[in-house]
Amino acid sequence: MKKIGTQTVLLSNKPKIISNFSVVGPKEGKGPLSEYFGKILEDDKLGQKTYEKAEQKLMELAVFSCIEKSGLTPKDIDMFLSGDLLNQIISSSFTARQFDTTFIGLFGACSTMTESLALGSCLVDGEYFENVLCSTCSHFATAERQFRYPLELGTQKPPTSQWTVTGAGATLLSLHGEGPYIEMVTFGKVCDYGVSDVNNMGAAMAPAAMHTLKTHFEDTGRKPDFYDLILTGDLGKFGSETLIDMMEKEGYAFSENYGDCGNMIFDIKQKTFMGGSGCGCSASVLNSYVITKLRRGDIDKVLFLSTGALLSTLSCQQGESIPGIAHAIVIRGK
Amino acid sequence: MKKIGTQTVLLSNKPKIISNFSVVGPKEGKGPLSEYFGKILEDDKLGQKTYEKAEQKLMELAVFSCIEKSGLTPKDIDMFLSGDLLNQIISSSFTARQFDTTFIGLFGACSTMTESLALGSCLVDGEYFENVLCSTCSHFATAERQFRYPLELGTQKPPTSQWTVTGAGATLLSLHGEGPYIEMVTFGKVCDYGVSDVNNMGAAMAPAAMHTLKTHFEDTGRKPDFYDLILTGDLGKFGSETLIDMMEKEGYAFSENYGDCGNMIFDIKQKTFMGGSGCGCSASVLNSYVITKLRRGDIDKVLFLSTGALLSTLSCQQGESIPGIAHAIVIRGK
Repeated sequence: MKKIGTQTVLLSNKPKIISNFSVVGPKEGKGPLSEYFGKILEDDKLGQKTYEKAEQKLMELAVFSCIEKSGLTPKDIDMFLSGDLLNQIISSSFTARQFDTTFIGLFGACSTMTESLALGSCLVDGEYFENVLCSTCSHFATAERQFRYPLELGTQKPPTSQWTVTGAGATLLSLHGEGPYIEMVTFGKVCDYGVSDVNNMGAAMAPAAMHTLKTHFEDTGRKPDFYDLILTGDLGKFGSETLIDMMEKEGYAFSENYGDCGNMIFDIKQKTFMGGSGCGCSASVLNSYVITKLRRGDIDKVLFLSTGALLSTLSCQQGESIPGIAHAIVIRGK
Repeated sequence: MKKIGTQTVLLSNKPKIISNFSVVGPKEGKGPLSEYFGKILEDDKLGQKTYEKAEQKLMELAVFSCIEKSGLTPKDIDMFLSGDLLNQIISSSFTARQFDTTFIGLFGACSTMTESLALGSCLVDGEYFENVLCSTCSHFATAERQFRYPLELGTQKPPTSQWTVTGAGATLLSLHGEGPYIEMVTFGKVCDYGVSDVNNMGAAMAPAAMHTLKTHFEDTGRKPDFYDLILTGDLGKFGSETLIDMMEKEGYAFSENYGDCGNMIFDIKQKTFMGGSGCGCSASVLNSYVITKLRRGDIDKVLFLSTGALLSTLSCQQGESIPGIAHAIVIRGK
């Protein structure tokens, strides 16, 4: 068995990240990670009639740029693994329609980037497919309209809220080639601590992040300081502080090697409340800053976990609390 | 590589179906497959306040009955792979919350049963996990409300429409044990022939079924008559006739070994127009009739493909056509 402990699998064939690409909106492009993004949009509507069509174009741009950068052609891709926040993941399905490859649609809310990479890594590692493309995206305007209110209403956001990132990321995994590789995967469980405040996603997702991290350390025998960087997806300021507290109570002290993509993507002056969120948050940070740092050799051992809040507007209206999930991947430098 | 041809993978470790369970609503329970279902509900609301909560209970019932029937306990399950039709797949996520196992959320519309089994088979075959539970469900009332109109409106259905099955199915795959096994998987691609009639899902999905079948035969060198049974998910009367025509044009004549779950689950007297649809359609037929027949030795070689229409209400409102997808699995008797 390749399973070690309860939730972790060790990948002996080292699936390589042979290409990656990120595309972000104008606001994200003015943030602290500006220099790392593959492409910064001037128009967050990408010339489309609706924001939903724009979101799909955003993913398409990330996916096809990622393939082009690898030197491969779309025909070389064996499988496309993708999901997004929109009802029935239309951004992903309509992107999959644009090219001739097998498609597995995922839903893990904002955990989708590592969900796709976790599964994709197993499919490459197990020699089922040679080249697997993993992707996700989100758009501020479509998420606001679907989960909260249309932008035209000008509704005020409460202080614990986060700002959905307009961004997409794509990672191309391959059995061959050169690049940082996925060493292991810790699949996440659904955790629900009873948080029902839809304007405090960080609090809803922190327990899932804690559970996956704790299990990862137990499964592997590693300690937090083994890693050069431990990065959560989009807990934001409140959620990441909650996570640090929870981990301390579990006996794992985080030092300066911990960060959260939601905290990193925006500057405090950009008025995004608790920071960035959305599938595109961890997708764009991973496929820009993180992989660039790994390629450059600035860092070598990264524990990366995207976190998702598994709610729908209807589940909230019917009085349900918000379950969370987090899947972790370990990426190693060359 | 375990890939043969372009989209098919061969599973050398033969992931076994060690348990299966189906639960259906009262209407489905009065249909021709009545004797095969694990449980037939008397109340399609399962005592819940809303139909959405009922749908989630339906899946829970299928999942936990499947585990119980296997002699294992929920703690023995390494992973739960599931998806459904509701926005943000809440039936699956909230079922995953009920037990302590890793969860991968999927969205493949009505293709979800074979999507989950295709992935689950690879994860078991590759020795990543020992016991993987695959499931999906649908409910007539929640699907009508979400995709069409609330039942209270009493809207008339056009003659090409299908009837969403109230049902859930769960299949437990294992590296060990006894039972029919998954021999190979043909992953599907997204196909769009420009059908935009939301009341004719069969027509939208038939091209995807044709594409996957044709590829399966090309990849494996097998012919349709190799199989005792070739079964599509929920093309219904119109869609399955379209498929037969399309396959004939491709040079593959279907004989009496072809069937469609949507045609089988209801009797013509039950007034379901073109027949059954929804994730629960292929899930409940597979996990009752098909696996029972395989276990009894009545049939030995089954090519099973669930078909999905990858639309959302919003994509249709924005003028998009309806892409389809179909993933196929080959199940062999003991």
